Amino acid sequence: MGFEHISSRRNKLIREAAALAASAERRREEARFLCEGARLCEDAARSGVQIDRCFFTEQAQRRYGEYLNRILPAAQEQFLVEEHVADLLSSTRNSQGIFCVCETPENLKQGKQAFSGACAVLENLQDPGNLGTVLRTAEALGIGCVFLLGDCCDPLSPKVLRASMGAVFRISVVAETSPVRLRDLLKRRGYTLYAAVPDAAASPVTAIDFSEGLHAVLIGNEGNGLTKEAVALCDIRLTIPMAGRAESLNASAAATILLWEMNRGAGY
Amino acid sequence: MGFEHISSRRNKLIREAAALAASAERRREEARFLCEGARLCEDAARSGVQIDRCFFTEQAQRRYGEYLNRILPAAQEQFLVEEHVADLLSSTRNSQGIFCVCETPENLKQGKQAFSGACAVLENLQDPGNLGTVLRTAEALGIGCVFLLGDCCDPLSPKVLRASMGAVFRISVVAETSPVRLRDLLKRRGYTLYAAVPDAAASPVTAIDFSEGLHAVLIGNEGNGLTKEAVALCDIRLTIPMAGRAESLNASAAATILLWEMNRGAGY
Repeated sequence: MGFEHISSRRNKLIREAAALAASAERRREEARFLCEGARLCEDAARSGVQIDRCFFTEQAQRRYGEYLNRILPAAQEQFLVEEHVADLLSSTRNSQGIFCVCETPENLKQGKQAFSGACAVLENLQDPGNLGTVLRTAEALGIGCVFLLGDCCDPLSPKVLRASMGAVFRISVVAETSPVRLRDLLKRRGYTLYAAVPDAAASPVTAIDFSEGLHAVLIGNEGNGLTKEAVALCDIRLTIPMAGRAESLNASAAATILLWEMNRGAGY
Repeated sequence: MGFEHISSRRNKLIREAAALAASAERRREEARFLCEGARLCEDAARSGVQIDRCFFTEQAQRRYGEYLNRILPAAQEQFLVEEHVADLLSSTRNSQGIFCVCETPENLKQGKQAFSGACAVLENLQDPGNLGTVLRTAEALGIGCVFLLGDCCDPLSPKVLRASMGAVFRISVVAETSPVRLRDLLKRRGYTLYAAVPDAAASPVTAIDFSEGLHAVLIGNEGNGLTKEAVALCDIRLTIPMAGRAESLNASAAATILLWEMNRGAGY
């Protein structure tokens, strides 16, 4: 097949794509992001994410031909790029040589808050690996929407995309900087808001009945927990009752337990 | 105070300590390991781990004096080492300049199987970060003992120690290469053995009553799950019922949910 070749690192499209990988601001401005890897680009295509361009290397054609067969038809433009050009786009050590410039999905655009069911709210979560993992777990456990409150890292950054295994394409993720606006949005729809706190005097999560009504749990970051402002907005303070040393539970494990408890009674 | 100085990277004690950090075989042979970091070395001292030697830098004396005040009295020998010497011992990017050569705790020596309560068995877990995280979660959730079955990584490697936040000093961790021997050991004490499998036809973990009797859950590694041999040794196959995409739950999140469920009914 005759794909257009790119052999210069100074090619304009390559430089645009590299800028999307490097800068959250650029991603916001253009409402586009860069997706890397055979599996992740296929996930994007499968999930109906709009793919503007796909860049791939000759080696990728040999090794990941099956993936490319499913990715390339979904892309508006396709470019065969040389290895040293692909290096500019990669944020992994062993690049697979497949990259897609994608349009930001609707659910990640501000003001497009489609959500239902049990919700998780992550406040000031700045570690991309943690955010990706929580999104992945939220998808597995059937959480309806993940809100990113305050100063969270960009869910479309290369690291989050990788750690989330593409969950970000499949579940609703809504960024909201204002705790008050978020509270109002959730309360209008009838949600009960819970603040997860490391306080033995709070309600044990196991004592809360999540099977009726709509529920949203707010979870803070590893270093500081929830802000006082966020806790004050909630209806109920809840905690994870533990037999052992509570300080040993890391943020991601705590989030896993909370998300699990929210849908545990769902009876599937 | 007049501590003995070490300024040469060829010093015999330093080379011995570096070898302990580098080699699991060496740790087994000597029944000793190297512990790095202010917090972790203090954890070792506090947990009653026998400390043969402590090496520390001048900078560590200034920055982590309070920690050293608690570590040094617990060590049999103390050495002030130069930065370039400390570099030889460090497996982190930003070393705190505190290192202890410690004796392997009794509970980690083969044949010393002191355990009680809910147990987790991890099979062929080779990622040090995952192992450390699971040990940390097990401690938080009050799991009585973690067995390392088959070809797991060494719980005393620098990476596991770091990821476990010292949990390995406080909970029982028992390595056992033979599934049959492990089964016999657990069955003799009256344990029921569960194999965690990704199979919707297995018993939902939420349907099992862990509140009576003794229970051990076997958990496989991320890539392959449990071996057939391990599954065959168990009494009951259990699974995590999920509303979403099951393949999205990573091994560490799955382990968190299983450990949580084992002690969830404990009523603390």
